[in-house]
Amino acid sequence: MHSTSQKILREDRPKRRGRARRTQTQPSSELPIIQHRSIPSYQLLSETALSKIEAQADWLMENIGVEFRSDEVAIELFREAGATVKGESVKFELGLLRQLCSTAPEQFKLHSRVPRHTITLGGDNVVLMPGYGSPFVTDLDKGRRYATLEDFQNFVKLSYSTPYLHHSGGTVCEPTDIPVNKRHLDMVYAHLKLSTKPFMGGVTAPERARDSIEMARIVFGKEYLESHAVMQGNINVNSPFIYDDTMSGSLRVYAEANQCVCVSPAIFGGAMGPVTPAAITAQTLAEGMVGVALTQLVRPGCPVVLGSFHSTMNLRTGSLTFGTPEANLVTMALTQLANRLGVPVRSGTGGQITAANAPDGQAMQDSANGMWATLLSGTHQVWHAAGWLEGGLTMSYEKFIMDLDNCGAMLKMFQGMAVNEDAFSKESYAETGPGQNFLSTSHTMKHFANANYESLLPDAGPYEMWLENGSKTAAERANGVWKKMLETYEEPSLNDAINRELQAFIAARKTSMPDEWY
Amino acid sequence: MHSTSQKILREDRPKRRGRARRTQTQPSSELPIIQHRSIPSYQLLSETALSKIEAQADWLMENIGVEFRSDEVAIELFREAGATVKGESVKFELGLLRQLCSTAPEQFKLHSRVPRHTITLGGDNVVLMPGYGSPFVTDLDKGRRYATLEDFQNFVKLSYSTPYLHHSGGTVCEPTDIPVNKRHLDMVYAHLKLSTKPFMGGVTAPERARDSIEMARIVFGKEYLESHAVMQGNINVNSPFIYDDTMSGSLRVYAEANQCVCVSPAIFGGAMGPVTPAAITAQTLAEGMVGVALTQLVRPGCPVVLGSFHSTMNLRTGSLTFGTPEANLVTMALTQLANRLGVPVRSGTGGQITAANAPDGQAMQDSANGMWATLLSGTHQVWHAAGWLEGGLTMSYEKFIMDLDNCGAMLKMFQGMAVNEDAFSKESYAETGPGQNFLSTSHTMKHFANANYESLLPDAGPYEMWLENGSKTAAERANGVWKKMLETYEEPSLNDAINRELQAFIAARKTSMPDEWY
Repeated sequence: MHSTSQKILREDRPKRRGRARRTQTQPSSELPIIQHRSIPSYQLLSETALSKIEAQADWLMENIGVEFRSDEVAIELFREAGATVKGESVKFELGLLRQLCSTAPEQFKLHSRVPRHTITLGGDNVVLMPGYGSPFVTDLDKGRRYATLEDFQNFVKLSYSTPYLHHSGGTVCEPTDIPVNKRHLDMVYAHLKLSTKPFMGGVTAPERARDSIEMARIVFGKEYLESHAVMQGNINVNSPFIYDDTMSGSLRVYAEANQCVCVSPAIFGGAMGPVTPAAITAQTLAEGMVGVALTQLVRPGCPVVLGSFHSTMNLRTGSLTFGTPEANLVTMALTQLANRLGVPVRSGTGGQITAANAPDGQAMQDSANGMWATLLSGTHQVWHAAGWLEGGLTMSYEKFIMDLDNCGAMLKMFQGMAVNEDAFSKESYAETGPGQNFLSTSHTMKHFANANYESLLPDAGPYEMWLENGSKTAAERANGVWKKMLETYEEPSLNDAINRELQAFIAARKTSMPDEWY
Repeated sequence: MHSTSQKILREDRPKRRGRARRTQTQPSSELPIIQHRSIPSYQLLSETALSKIEAQADWLMENIGVEFRSDEVAIELFREAGATVKGESVKFELGLLRQLCSTAPEQFKLHSRVPRHTITLGGDNVVLMPGYGSPFVTDLDKGRRYATLEDFQNFVKLSYSTPYLHHSGGTVCEPTDIPVNKRHLDMVYAHLKLSTKPFMGGVTAPERARDSIEMARIVFGKEYLESHAVMQGNINVNSPFIYDDTMSGSLRVYAEANQCVCVSPAIFGGAMGPVTPAAITAQTLAEGMVGVALTQLVRPGCPVVLGSFHSTMNLRTGSLTFGTPEANLVTMALTQLANRLGVPVRSGTGGQITAANAPDGQAMQDSANGMWATLLSGTHQVWHAAGWLEGGLTMSYEKFIMDLDNCGAMLKMFQGMAVNEDAFSKESYAETGPGQNFLSTSHTMKHFANANYESLLPDAGPYEMWLENGSKTAAERANGVWKKMLETYEEPSLNDAINRELQAFIAARKTSMPDEWY
């Protein structure tokens, strides 16, 4: 999506109409948001292969089961539903788990206070989100450092300002300057105040999940939340086969409030499961279905997403690896399996993920590889679509822009190819002839401004110009883009009374407990 | 396919068995070569859309036609076949062109003097090749400079040494230190002497095409070549709708010798055709079919590939752009159309292409995007799979390695996901339990060495180690890899008498004409 030095027929090209519009710096409110995939999804596995993986998942839950550590409420819910409970172990007779999942909706909305930011999870829709969970941030000016609340707010602003992300994310980066037990308050406030896109609330303790939901109730109204999901909570499984009480407790809080849960087993092949893609796929499905079932036991019909966080590792060195062919196969298979289960799916370590330490060639190669597997398979929700470096340890401001650029390109591709008489433009051929160019045909003049996706990055120009300008890498050219986006960011309006109520809630919660830093 | 800093459970990982084997530096002769795609191809367009594009292509050839400039032989062949000829213009009544293409084989082999390097074009097979046509090369040691014969030879050696390319390419880079009218002799000699992989011969004049074929006859035998294709000639169309006599003349030389032709229209949307992807697709198909038909008129059954070189341009600035969503849509559609025509297809500006001036994040993002569209659609022959920078102006030694790495990863993905009891490894779950790791299961111990694709690039390591080692980008880490490959390159054997005959032929041809530098 970038330019080369080979300028052809420069003098003949269509006249610029005023300054080239750099759409990415326009206010978010003016830009169309593409959520719909108009091209087919890629079907990796056959019906037979999918059935075999489902049978393996069923076998795992019949024979291995999961443990709910210290969550008697969850265990009791499963016992009542007919599961085989022994101590903290929960197993499922063949067919039971799928039956418990059957009330989960196939498609649902996450509502925004601004209609254009309401999104659909499921069907032919995609939801792109920024990275999640990095303790560090980096940019080319200040280098790598612990993330702060200001960084967190910056990424919320950037995600709000682009049409290429649909969701504000959750813990986009850790605001490490805020006590651990109070961070969720500042993060949820930033999502609600600085953005109107759907977001994720706290999950690191059930009471933090409750605080997050309470803040959403202040903005949207208590009754509204009873029937409308506006937020998500991410529930990680301690794979293999463990749900700890923090996670299952937070899951229950979100489900009770009818807010969306995303259940994410976390399996690196060879560590938390066998090394083979088929085994990782089956185990992810099995562990994930248990979380989906729990949401439905708490509140039938509760919106839930089957997630995953799987990847490969180098088993010679112990390093985690991302964007790998084996991980991409699992991502594509899981999308098919979630569709068969009838639950929206979050990409399993898809998105734009990498183990690289800088936004270099490796980072973008890994990221593009992961993104194609994720998006072409028809995944509904894509975490880590922008910013992720170092296996998630760091959010990079420059990679965020480079990733956004690819999100925009992929969303353009999602619109597919128009095959009709206007596109064929037979009349153009009457205006030209063999050997003549099409730069000035009426069709080109009509379409040139919007025919092609335009990169967010400034054009590097031909080699000699690029050299003169300091041989700037893509990351260096992205540096100015995020700054410009932050400069031109316009905060959405929020009712004053609501804002004051939010602030009062936060203040009260903060003074109610001493700071905790662990 | 790379490593991160998050080392988990390092002490538990399987013991290294001696030094980690870096398979990429093993002699080519020991490594398996994957040519077969075991995963489904992606079908972008519906039957209806494909039919509409075919109808547009037919309309173009009925109403616009092509011009064969100064090639009376080609024009006469078309006239005899029933085409409508007026001067140099050739048009085709509905149905005629497809009928003329019908003798082209759907699948065929390019033979090597070493059976393991014989490749299949068509079906579920893929042929990856290095870049083509760059006047410049670049590496991190010596920077960007005009390419020489030594560079050319280096890239032939590198392509020979990797299992991730199947073909030696053609004018991988221009040996600018050799006179223009003699370069083809040195290039073909390098392909024949330094490699055993199939290759492309000269096309810049019909007599250079004849020299190239003559040299192949010396190696393979004249009779053998009559019934076995061992090489290809790339025939570029001067889009829109022009075949010049150099190209159509060279096409006829290859076809007469029963050697493979690749016909490549060259269309940048808005310049050599309308700006819309559907129009570019139809025009490429139309122009390409004419070349395919000509090969069949010269020699029915002659092996031919429907190629393309299409992409987008920034119509505000005139810059060419690569790896764009619009170009990727065309690539995917053309593969479907060629399959319907029954002719193997060369990627249309797929492969790992970019306008970037350095092997940075942009370069690899563009390249991975182009590669996925190309490979997933089931394209049979992929030019520019390694090394391409600056819209083809430069071959980069480092990008060559980074691209190779992705070729290897994609070929691994092509093998698909094994879904069977060994992969599921039920016994692993008996060896472990909830919360326990799989690092030492017998299944992991059995599979760890080969389960995952292993990157060609040295591991960057965790952030702190990477920083201490000089914060090397992927390109910097690739720098040592190509040097090591050249160091360990082993030349294939070639019969002495044949080699002397080749050298004598080249010497005779070189002395028969004065140097020409244009």
